[in-house]
Amino acid sequence: MPIPAPNLYPPFNIIRLSHVVFGVTDLAKSRHFYVDTLGLQVTDETADTLYLRAMEERGHHCIVLKQADQATARALSFKVFSEEDLDKAATWFANKGHAVDWVDRPYQGRTLATVDHDGMPIEFYHKMDRLAPIHQRYELYRGVKPLRIDHFNCFSPSVDASVAFYNELGFRVTEYTEDEDSQLLWAAWTHRKGGVHDMAFTNGTGPRLHHTAFWVPTPLNIIDLCDLMATTGYVGNIERGPGRHGISNAFFLYILDPDDHRIEIYCSDYQTVDPDLEPIKWDLKDPQRQTLWGAPAPKSWFEQGSLFEGVTPRKADLDATPIVAP
Amino acid sequence: MPIPAPNLYPPFNIIRLSHVVFGVTDLAKSRHFYVDTLGLQVTDETADTLYLRAMEERGHHCIVLKQADQATARALSFKVFSEEDLDKAATWFANKGHAVDWVDRPYQGRTLATVDHDGMPIEFYHKMDRLAPIHQRYELYRGVKPLRIDHFNCFSPSVDASVAFYNELGFRVTEYTEDEDSQLLWAAWTHRKGGVHDMAFTNGTGPRLHHTAFWVPTPLNIIDLCDLMATTGYVGNIERGPGRHGISNAFFLYILDPDDHRIEIYCSDYQTVDPDLEPIKWDLKDPQRQTLWGAPAPKSWFEQGSLFEGVTPRKADLDATPIVAP
Amino acid sequence: MPIPAPNLYPPFNIIRLSHVVFGVTDLAKSRHFYVDTLGLQVTDETADTLYLRAMEERGHHCIVLKQADQATARALSFKVFSEEDLDKAATWFANKGHAVDWVDRPYQGRTLATVDHDGMPIEFYHKMDRLAPIHQRYELYRGVKPLRIDHFNCFSPSVDASVAFYNELGFRVTEYTEDEDSQLLWAAWTHRKGGVHDMAFTNGTGPRLHHTAFWVPTPLNIIDLCDLMATTGYVGNIERGPGRHGISNAFFLYILDPDDHRIEIYCSDYQTVDPDLEPIKWDLKDPQRQTLWGAPAPKSWFEQGSLFEGVTPRKADLDATPIVAP
Amino acid sequence: MPIPAPNLYPPFNIIRLSHVVFGVTDLAKSRHFYVDTLGLQVTDETADTLYLRAMEERGHHCIVLKQADQATARALSFKVFSEEDLDKAATWFANKGHAVDWVDRPYQGRTLATVDHDGMPIEFYHKMDRLAPIHQRYELYRGVKPLRIDHFNCFSPSVDASVAFYNELGFRVTEYTEDEDSQLLWAAWTHRKGGVHDMAFTNGTGPRLHHTAFWVPTPLNIIDLCDLMATTGYVGNIERGPGRHGISNAFFLYILDPDDHRIEIYCSDYQTVDPDLEPIKWDLKDPQRQTLWGAPAPKSWFEQGSLFEGVTPRKADLDATPIVAP
Repeated sequence: MPIPAPNLYPPFNIIRLSHVVFGVTDLAKSRHFYVDTLGLQVTDETADTLYLRAMEERGHHCIVLKQADQATARALSFKVFSEEDLDKAATWFANKGHAVDWVDRPYQGRTLATVDHDGMPIEFYHKMDRLAPIHQRYELYRGVKPLRIDHFNCFSPSVDASVAFYNELGFRVTEYTEDEDSQLLWAAWTHRKGGVHDMAFTNGTGPRLHHTAFWVPTPLNIIDLCDLMATTGYVGNIERGPGRHGISNAFFLYILDPDDHRIEIYCSDYQTVDPDLEPIKWDLKDPQRQTLWGAPAPKSWFEQGSLFEGVTPRKADLDATPIVAP
Repeated sequence: MPIPAPNLYPPFNIIRLSHVVFGVTDLAKSRHFYVDTLGLQVTDETADTLYLRAMEERGHHCIVLKQADQATARALSFKVFSEEDLDKAATWFANKGHAVDWVDRPYQGRTLATVDHDGMPIEFYHKMDRLAPIHQRYELYRGVKPLRIDHFNCFSPSVDASVAFYNELGFRVTEYTEDEDSQLLWAAWTHRKGGVHDMAFTNGTGPRLHHTAFWVPTPLNIIDLCDLMATTGYVGNIERGPGRHGISNAFFLYILDPDDHRIEIYCSDYQTVDPDLEPIKWDLKDPQRQTLWGAPAPKSWFEQGSLFEGVTPRKADLDATPIVAP
Repeated sequence: MPIPAPNLYPPFNIIRLSHVVFGVTDLAKSRHFYVDTLGLQVTDETADTLYLRAMEERGHHCIVLKQADQATARALSFKVFSEEDLDKAATWFANKGHAVDWVDRPYQGRTLATVDHDGMPIEFYHKMDRLAPIHQRYELYRGVKPLRIDHFNCFSPSVDASVAFYNELGFRVTEYTEDEDSQLLWAAWTHRKGGVHDMAFTNGTGPRLHHTAFWVPTPLNIIDLCDLMATTGYVGNIERGPGRHGISNAFFLYILDPDDHRIEIYCSDYQTVDPDLEPIKWDLKDPQRQTLWGAPAPKSWFEQGSLFEGVTPRKADLDATPIVAP
Repeated sequence: MPIPAPNLYPPFNIIRLSHVVFGVTDLAKSRHFYVDTLGLQVTDETADTLYLRAMEERGHHCIVLKQADQATARALSFKVFSEEDLDKAATWFANKGHAVDWVDRPYQGRTLATVDHDGMPIEFYHKMDRLAPIHQRYELYRGVKPLRIDHFNCFSPSVDASVAFYNELGFRVTEYTEDEDSQLLWAAWTHRKGGVHDMAFTNGTGPRLHHTAFWVPTPLNIIDLCDLMATTGYVGNIERGPGRHGISNAFFLYILDPDDHRIEIYCSDYQTVDPDLEPIKWDLKDPQRQTLWGAPAPKSWFEQGSLFEGVTPRKADLDATPIVAP
């Protein structure tokens, strides 16, 4: 199907992706991964929960880790422009027939919990506790020097349907991969905040969370992280890269946390604030769309994803056999 | 005066700064500087005009050079969200009693020419010719590998008045310097597109253009430019830096073009899309606000600016003696 | 076999590796690869020969390309400390029963041609035309910004024998890989000039040239080269990397020239001038010795090598089945 | 005076500079500077002495800090090729009439203490305790990620005399600055280990130690150090840079320790192992010799130096008025 025209006047104003909550099976191990290795900063810590932010963020958390029996992703959360936008969102989802719920989330103001067209749990809020800046407290920088959360990437059983849904919410497509035979979308990248994406969708059994990405200063920080992980017991957690994506032009590294939640470390995509920015189309048969330099992604990268708590994913409409280079 | 509350619902929607037109006294020399040395790409060239874009830009031009008897800046230009915003802008400026004019600008759609509160020429458009992407044509990258225009910085005779005017247009203050004695603003950084600034104002005889900034991938590209300029006859055009700004946290270099139009090369500021992002206040007496590492700016940096064609600047309200470290 | 004690007082003084001569089947294509893509500088050019140097070298050539019917490596060349060392070398090789020949090489003084213990052609000279420095002519830097030739790596049918031979010539082992079962060397790195190696040996059908390496300023230059090659028709010539070697700790990229001569781009190994520097031992079963970050080398990397003109390689003593990660 | 021909067959074989001992007035403060800020590793620590090494060094120490009443430099130390070279050195110095003494130095073998032609204390040893490699223990890297000690730079009252003396010991001049009027050397860079220098001499009241330099991976590590020092109370200890030297082409930063001992952070000079490498001559009137990019050095850089314990420096023969750009 063709990419829909961008919805420039969405029903409510989503500013950006905000944070994710992970169920993790060993909080101490996860702490060692996210705090001691990646370099995220602890903003609160209880017996069973860890709140983290990246170095340039002033909101209280971009990732929340909760001790759990099973490794899962909980809701994907988004910040909206105003309290009024929250109410508009509640109305809009209710009118669509999606369950809506006002939930208590520590350090956040009013928070709306609902699901998308595929039943994927998503949450919206406007207010979160604001913390003092630490981006110039250089003695705190560690690991990969994570600056901010950048995007989510989700396995979707129908990327066309996902694009249609999120496009209505104002997420604009910046790049996409089409299967020439079926004319169906294989993958799409959509944004709110002015980068290549806040939300991307990849064809596959879903909804599942493919990865959560963090922005870092330069490719050298990614090389530093590879060196650190390779020599501190995490060599098996380096899944793919480093390399350059064709799509987005970003420099990337994919790593797996102790529960196999996938994290992308990411830098150097481009600015997309122009409302008339033309989406870039890629052919599914072009291996450079994934890695500009030609190296194939490993099989696990096409298969592994985090389950959402309480959500049973369904098989993709499009045959999900990964296109892996030989 | 206190920083005004951000105007979250401005009268029309400015997306971002777009481009500047410079009068230059020797177009061939300017070409050598901007194209052969900085690495901007020529998108059109006539006997007396050169149109340039940076590597990730798809709009036709971010800088226009025109052969002229005198070196001047012409209008500062901004892209608005829609054609309707252009009409709203025309009405708004007319209601304020500012001259408004619809002008022809090659490669642009309808273009509104007017002036700000200080008589500084500014222009607005929605449509500009869109060009094919070149950000992955790596054989074209040269010089400092400029990715996009980032911001303008203007000398203002009253930074408080400038902030009040642009705040009304929706430019949100991200950082500012206050003179403790007078309680007046010495400088302010204001944005539309989600970085630290599209427009900054510095106390001084104005309106004059202090500098135009380009975003580059990493600090190493700035070091490369220093090496190149230092060994190709431009050592005298390196004015200040490289260094880290306290304000904005950006890595910077200031250089002067053959007509002393000042260009900043810039990378690594932070994302500012949150509408509740708190502005950061700096004390005029803190030398680290300018250069985090302590090195003072040279005198020329406080004094030299590009005149706007046909505009006579006036002295600043606040004594403009630069605070230069000894 | 154990690593022999370093021969601190060798029979003649080899300063460093110097250059290689390649037979290439399409000189224009090779020129495009080495000059326009890698950024080596042409120091002389005739109808059938191209002389190249890297940016910090003052000797006339580090690589010579000769139009030929077959792609081959010719001799590997070394610079000795003095003219007297040349005579000592001639005597030493003659006494060993190796053919020695004084040959004419353009831009070089007296040049001794001989073979090593395996019949691999090697040459020695003291004087080469010295050219004006260009390392600060930054307008000439292109491609990967190659600074200097760094080392040769050769397939050897018996790495133990190669180490014994070159050790006698004063090449000191810095790191090595041992096959635990056979106690035979799988690979060894040996140096003269104070880095990890001038000459390395890898178990395999030989003698053949595995690769020739060039030193570059930083890992970012290697990333730049990947981007450039990937978008100028050379994506298939990127063979392995970029990554960090366990052995040598260097950041690397392997690429293939249009005739499949392998080039390594290399930076950040360590200083080895101490005569009592202990060699570092690696286990053949440790995949991190090759790539610290765990990614396996492709099969071609274990198999492809440049034949030396007129030399028939023999099978390795040790079974050469590559240890490739699954 | 002309630069003397290099002495290719010196009386004994010095491998490289090795280490310096500093008297410091507050060992805890110095520890915070060298260990917590620069990132050197502690190899031993007693009540009044701290032994440090850099990340790729396997010798026990490259810098020794001793609690003292006065901040001084003690001897500059060099590693020689063999024990026999130590005896040759003792004889050579004794024959010259210099006091020679065999001294006990912890973690070192036989150590020869003597003075140079100006009475500057220097020491030689062959054996030092060798420690396990840590260059791949990436979790230990901190601060500027110092890899190895690189060189000493000394104020000399007669650079011509210093060059003559050290040239006799085999230190080869790589670059030098001449005063055109007097034909005297203003400064010279001389090496043993194959980089631009192990020992440099600068015209001025001497002998005094101008600075001790450490090699780091890339210019970005130097930028990281500036950021760290600027925000942890050391902004006043950043004296000069970062920038590119004309001489040596190195990227540099000069910082002062808590006792004003000057440390240079340094990377990216070039290989100098060729015995016929031509020295590069610079004119004292060329400001780019100091900083390729044109920025002048501050006055302190020309005046401040560490006194050697018990040595009274004398005024320079050549008027030592610094050539500071306006």
